[in-house]
Amino acid sequence: MRGVFDLNCDAGESFGAWVMGNDAEVMRHVTSANIACGVHASDPKAMRRTVWFCKQCGVMAGAHPGYPDLQGFGRRRMDMERGEIIDWVIYQVGALKGFTSLAGIPLQHVKLHGALYNYVSREEDLFLDIAGAVREAFGDVVFVTFASPASGELKKRCRSSGVRIALEAFPDRAYTDEGALVARGHEGAVINDAKTIASRAIGMVREGCIESVNGRRIACEIDTLCIHGDNKESVLAAPLIREHAAMEGIAVKPLGSFV
Amino acid sequence: MRGVFDLNCDAGESFGAWVMGNDAEVMRHVTSANIACGVHASDPKAMRRTVWFCKQCGVMAGAHPGYPDLQGFGRRRMDMERGEIIDWVIYQVGALKGFTSLAGIPLQHVKLHGALYNYVSREEDLFLDIAGAVREAFGDVVFVTFASPASGELKKRCRSSGVRIALEAFPDRAYTDEGALVARGHEGAVINDAKTIASRAIGMVREGCIESVNGRRIACEIDTLCIHGDNKESVLAAPLIREHAAMEGIAVKPLGSFV
Amino acid sequence: MRGVFDLNCDAGESFGAWVMGNDAEVMRHVTSANIACGVHASDPKAMRRTVWFCKQCGVMAGAHPGYPDLQGFGRRRMDMERGEIIDWVIYQVGALKGFTSLAGIPLQHVKLHGALYNYVSREEDLFLDIAGAVREAFGDVVFVTFASPASGELKKRCRSSGVRIALEAFPDRAYTDEGALVARGHEGAVINDAKTIASRAIGMVREGCIESVNGRRIACEIDTLCIHGDNKESVLAAPLIREHAAMEGIAVKPLGSFV
Amino acid sequence: MRGVFDLNCDAGESFGAWVMGNDAEVMRHVTSANIACGVHASDPKAMRRTVWFCKQCGVMAGAHPGYPDLQGFGRRRMDMERGEIIDWVIYQVGALKGFTSLAGIPLQHVKLHGALYNYVSREEDLFLDIAGAVREAFGDVVFVTFASPASGELKKRCRSSGVRIALEAFPDRAYTDEGALVARGHEGAVINDAKTIASRAIGMVREGCIESVNGRRIACEIDTLCIHGDNKESVLAAPLIREHAAMEGIAVKPLGSFV
Repeated sequence: MRGVFDLNCDAGESFGAWVMGNDAEVMRHVTSANIACGVHASDPKAMRRTVWFCKQCGVMAGAHPGYPDLQGFGRRRMDMERGEIIDWVIYQVGALKGFTSLAGIPLQHVKLHGALYNYVSREEDLFLDIAGAVREAFGDVVFVTFASPASGELKKRCRSSGVRIALEAFPDRAYTDEGALVARGHEGAVINDAKTIASRAIGMVREGCIESVNGRRIACEIDTLCIHGDNKESVLAAPLIREHAAMEGIAVKPLGSFV
Repeated sequence: MRGVFDLNCDAGESFGAWVMGNDAEVMRHVTSANIACGVHASDPKAMRRTVWFCKQCGVMAGAHPGYPDLQGFGRRRMDMERGEIIDWVIYQVGALKGFTSLAGIPLQHVKLHGALYNYVSREEDLFLDIAGAVREAFGDVVFVTFASPASGELKKRCRSSGVRIALEAFPDRAYTDEGALVARGHEGAVINDAKTIASRAIGMVREGCIESVNGRRIACEIDTLCIHGDNKESVLAAPLIREHAAMEGIAVKPLGSFV
Repeated sequence: MRGVFDLNCDAGESFGAWVMGNDAEVMRHVTSANIACGVHASDPKAMRRTVWFCKQCGVMAGAHPGYPDLQGFGRRRMDMERGEIIDWVIYQVGALKGFTSLAGIPLQHVKLHGALYNYVSREEDLFLDIAGAVREAFGDVVFVTFASPASGELKKRCRSSGVRIALEAFPDRAYTDEGALVARGHEGAVINDAKTIASRAIGMVREGCIESVNGRRIACEIDTLCIHGDNKESVLAAPLIREHAAMEGIAVKPLGSFV
Repeated sequence: MRGVFDLNCDAGESFGAWVMGNDAEVMRHVTSANIACGVHASDPKAMRRTVWFCKQCGVMAGAHPGYPDLQGFGRRRMDMERGEIIDWVIYQVGALKGFTSLAGIPLQHVKLHGALYNYVSREEDLFLDIAGAVREAFGDVVFVTFASPASGELKKRCRSSGVRIALEAFPDRAYTDEGALVARGHEGAVINDAKTIASRAIGMVREGCIESVNGRRIACEIDTLCIHGDNKESVLAAPLIREHAAMEGIAVKPLGSFV
């Protein structure tokens, strides 16, 4: 049984005059925040504010780089060369690091966003190239990626290249038998009940496995759980998850402290 | 007589499929390069390449942040709040620093670009706020700004706030009696003869003063001379400047080594 | 006494994943909508939807072009050449006209947005150049501009160049004695009471004059009143304005039908 | 034997301070120009200028819409919903039509650009939806698309929906036996000899078929030949093509006049 996990949320996704999300509410409950970097969302002002808000809340800050597609919010796959993907990640992480340095807080982690997250989670070599470049440029930063049955193997490869990773699961999302997320739009893809989300969350961490839509148990180590700020029930689940964890003697800590 | 100066040029101003400038030629002659940061020009790929090219050439790399106006190439003044200007500078310098860190070279300096350079060079308090924030976020980085009769005073204020600055002059541009550049478009604003540019350059450094269009001598300390890559004669002047400097026993070194 | 006026609102200001405004509510009350054109706000999808919504509601559609500054929402003045301003207006009006043509409804009017509206309302020659180019390209489209004591003169010049204009007032905003808007941020600049807004509105139309903060009456013909969708009280005022107008026998009609 | 064909080129691909192509040279030789619309390349100023240049040269103007990806020059496939693709096409064609209307010249045709051209040329239903929407919004505009063995069938479907199309071939590109272009990067993909390009061009038109890399003859009707402005030999081939055509009594005319 795992004795510790992290709760993460996306943050700083407003852009210019447009507000998105309710960072003030979600950030009360998480230990790590993934901050958009002005390329699929956010802008320098929003980045500075979100970093300061992290500092104020004691939440660890991470970069959340995505495809250069503001109108598509980084959710549309772009057919980009591997080298350019790495360049775009370095650019965005660097930009965010400017603000964490200004605020005097560390850059704890990097988590890719949207279509880039999905794409790279299926391309292990590319993942390692990106994570390696980030480590080269920014030092000992944790890379967050999708927890799947293949993650064990990935973790080994990461260790041998000196890359720290944290495996992430989504308690408010249904999983297929193969350990993938059921695509949004399918019935039951998103779980809309705070209590169910919370008990799934604790189950995932405690038992090191995810239950699929068909009741199959998929074994995978889980380091961090994602709280979706745009799913109201997911936000409501966050304090319940913390209560359950406390009752079961499981600690909730920033991922950088234990992976 | 000043025994040392720096030669700088703008670099990395291509964007996507569009090429600008001839970095390969200009970078052979300078000691410092101001690299665009993907906001008024450049993109992550161009930034990575330009930083590596600096490393290869032994040219010191600096950030060249501008207004967020790609179509206007950062040459149009935007009526932006002071706080947002600082945010945009931090963003861009951070993004570039990602690439210098990846390449394992230091970030030597920051020089604002275009309309932002012009605006901030007239707003001393804002200049100090920006330079202070950059120092807070990125440590001991030199700020390059316009050399003028008022620069002596500015240098004192910088020293007392721990900000290092380098004062810049433009040997291929005509100056008014007040020490401002004659606006492009006016006759004689740009000097199009390599020999004249070179002798003006050496004169500026040796005598610590700039000669105006009316022959008036404007005293001001000069640390670095700008080579405009888009002025062919300015590029041709660069090796002449180095020859003259050698003959007169004046060293040409990266600004970070002596200011 | 004027027997007719128009009620207009800004619309279609969402962008990508970011929602702005409550078009569904505001469009129930107005006769003309100013639709953002994908440059300071909106995108092709939002434009298509908003145009169709206009058609459904029987609201006349107009283009609402702004500065090319998405992050600043077109509210920051940009120092742009006159020719480029005209080019940007043609571009945006053309883009919107594509969608009105697709929906089979006319393009009734053009109203500049934000900092561009403010700037051009003070530059009469530029205004006439823009309106002339729009007329040349798109035919008999009405130009909406700020009603001021100088508008009478402007109307004459417009008539002689074949440009139709509609003069606009802001019942939820305070005016200076000179007929300018009190800048946002000043106390009392925005009026936050639906009843006051409604009675100001009717007064403006009926009496052809605006009352300043000091009680001075500024005579100016008024063709259209702006309902700000982001001022809740302004939206609440809209049906009251219609009730009062009905009681006083003043018609509320799309501006294109009477100017 | 076909007695007439069109020569087309891409034009107006400069952006802001960045120049691309040599429109002044290429436009002397073609009958139709595909003008970028400010989304993957170009901007309002460049669009206005290019449209005027078409008018001056007697070249027919068409819109050249692409993916919203300026940095990638519209060459990267984006995973976009079908409805959004149509919206983006309407947006861009509308924007260009503003400038053709201002110049008092017709909008002759629409040709998709880059990755969008490639994608849509393989999706016949989507092609017809786009062309139908363009026809609905802009009237009788010709759609240019890739000539292939399947084009005969497509032409029939177009006729029954009232859509006019022009089939395009690339005399400076090698073709596979299946009638696709050999991908750039493969040896021999681009033909770099003006005479060869010219004789291929005339062969394509005269015989209504394309010769593949293996000498296979692929029958397909050809209405227009593309001159690539960035292939120097392709530009040199253009006057040769016209000479050969004249000698063989084949007319070179704008596509809108005969398809």
